[in-house]
Amino acid sequence: MSDDAVPEAPSPRTTVRRKRDRADYDPTTVEAILDEGLVCHLGVVVDGAPVVIPTLHARSGRTLYLHGASGNAALRTAATDGAQVCATVTLIDGLVLARSAFHHSANYRSAVVFGAARKVEDSEEKEAALAALVEHIVPGRDEGTRAPSAEELRSTLVIALPIEEASAKVRTGPPIDEPEDHDLGHWAGVLPLTVVPGEPQPDPLLPEGTAVPDHVRSWRPRR
Amino acid sequence: MSDDAVPEAPSPRTTVRRKRDRADYDPTTVEAILDEGLVCHLGVVVDGAPVVIPTLHARSGRTLYLHGASGNAALRTAATDGAQVCATVTLIDGLVLARSAFHHSANYRSAVVFGAARKVEDSEEKEAALAALVEHIVPGRDEGTRAPSAEELRSTLVIALPIEEASAKVRTGPPIDEPEDHDLGHWAGVLPLTVVPGEPQPDPLLPEGTAVPDHVRSWRPRR
Repeated sequence: MSDDAVPEAPSPRTTVRRKRDRADYDPTTVEAILDEGLVCHLGVVVDGAPVVIPTLHARSGRTLYLHGASGNAALRTAATDGAQVCATVTLIDGLVLARSAFHHSANYRSAVVFGAARKVEDSEEKEAALAALVEHIVPGRDEGTRAPSAEELRSTLVIALPIEEASAKVRTGPPIDEPEDHDLGHWAGVLPLTVVPGEPQPDPLLPEGTAVPDHVRSWRPRR
Repeated sequence: MSDDAVPEAPSPRTTVRRKRDRADYDPTTVEAILDEGLVCHLGVVVDGAPVVIPTLHARSGRTLYLHGASGNAALRTAATDGAQVCATVTLIDGLVLARSAFHHSANYRSAVVFGAARKVEDSEEKEAALAALVEHIVPGRDEGTRAPSAEELRSTLVIALPIEEASAKVRTGPPIDEPEDHDLGHWAGVLPLTVVPGEPQPDPLLPEGTAVPDHVRSWRPRR
C-alpha cells in the first residue's frame, strides 16, 4: 500500500499521540477488533465524572450496537440526545517480557469509538441488532433460539453508535530493550495468550442426551 | 456469614441497581478481580466527554496503581488534582447460551473503582509500584529484570487510586430461561472460556539456548 493510501485519524481526539507507530486508522483494523472482542467498555459522563461499564456489543456495517435493560443507568445516559460516549474494545495477545522492568508491555489490539449514540426505536432495526448481538458472541447461534417477544423488546434498550470517529492501536512483536541491556542474561520474549473454550456445560434443565450443536462445539475466537 | 456481615455499597454510584443479586461489595471479591485481570479500562473526562483507554495496572493493598508515559494524555488528566476517574476490570468466564435470544448473557466478574487519583511523586513508592506492575503480569518476574533508571522513572507517570469506592458484579451459572421455553428443543448451557498461555517466544536477540525461566513456563491466570 502506498503511503498516501494510509488512512488518517478521523478527528483530533482519535489521533494517537503516544507510540504513534502503533496507531491504525484503517476501518478494517477497527472492525476486526470490534468483531473479535467479546466485551466492550462503555464510558459515559454522569454528574461530571466518568463511569465505565462492561457490556456486550455487536457491529453491523459501520454501526456499533450496545444493549442492556431499559433501566440500565449508564446505557440510558448514553442514549440521551447529544451525550458523548466512548466505547473501547481491547484484546490481549501476549505478555511482553523485557530485560528491563521499564520495557515490559503487552501485545494488544484496541479499538476506540467516540461519538453520540442514538436510541434504536425502529422495531426492525432493534430486532436485527439483538440478533447481531447473539451472533456476535456465538456465530450461528441466532437461528437456534427463540426471537424476542414484544415485551422483551420493550424491556431492552439498544443504542447505536456510528463507527466514524474511531481508531485502533496495535502492539506486536518482541520486547524492545536498550542495547546495553542485551547482555544482562535475563530471558526476554513474549508469552502469547489465547482465549480457549472449555467443554460446553449443558443447562441442568436440558433433557439428557440433547446434542451440543456445531455452532457451540466449533466456537473459537474470531481472529 | 450472617446477613449483617454482608458489606454494603460504599457510595450511591457504586450501588448496583440492575441485577442486584449480582452485586458484591466485599473488598476480597473486588481485589481478586483486580488481581486476575491483565488489563484495566481507565475512564476520564476530557472537554466534557468520556475517554476510555486500556492500561496495565497493579494492586498493592488498598491502592490501585496505573502507569504510562509521562506524556500520556488520559493519564495526565487522571493525575490532575481532584479529577474523577473510573477504573474497570472485567473477566469473561463463559458465554451463556439460552433458549431465547433475550436471555443470552455472559458469565463475568467485573470490578469498578471510582475516585480521585494522586500522582505518585515519592521515588520509593514509585519504584515499588513499577515493580508491582511487573509482578502483576508475571509473578516472580521482577527479580529477573533490570530496575528502572532515574531517567526511566522520570519518563513514567504513575498514579494511585484508593480502592475505597469500589464494587464488583458477578454472574455465574447456567442460563435462566422462561419456563415455557424449556421444551423448545434448543440446546442451552454455558461455554466456559479461559485464557491460556502458548509456547513462550524468545526475543530473537536472545543468545541461543537461554532457558525459559520457571516464572514464564508456569504462568497461569490467577484464579
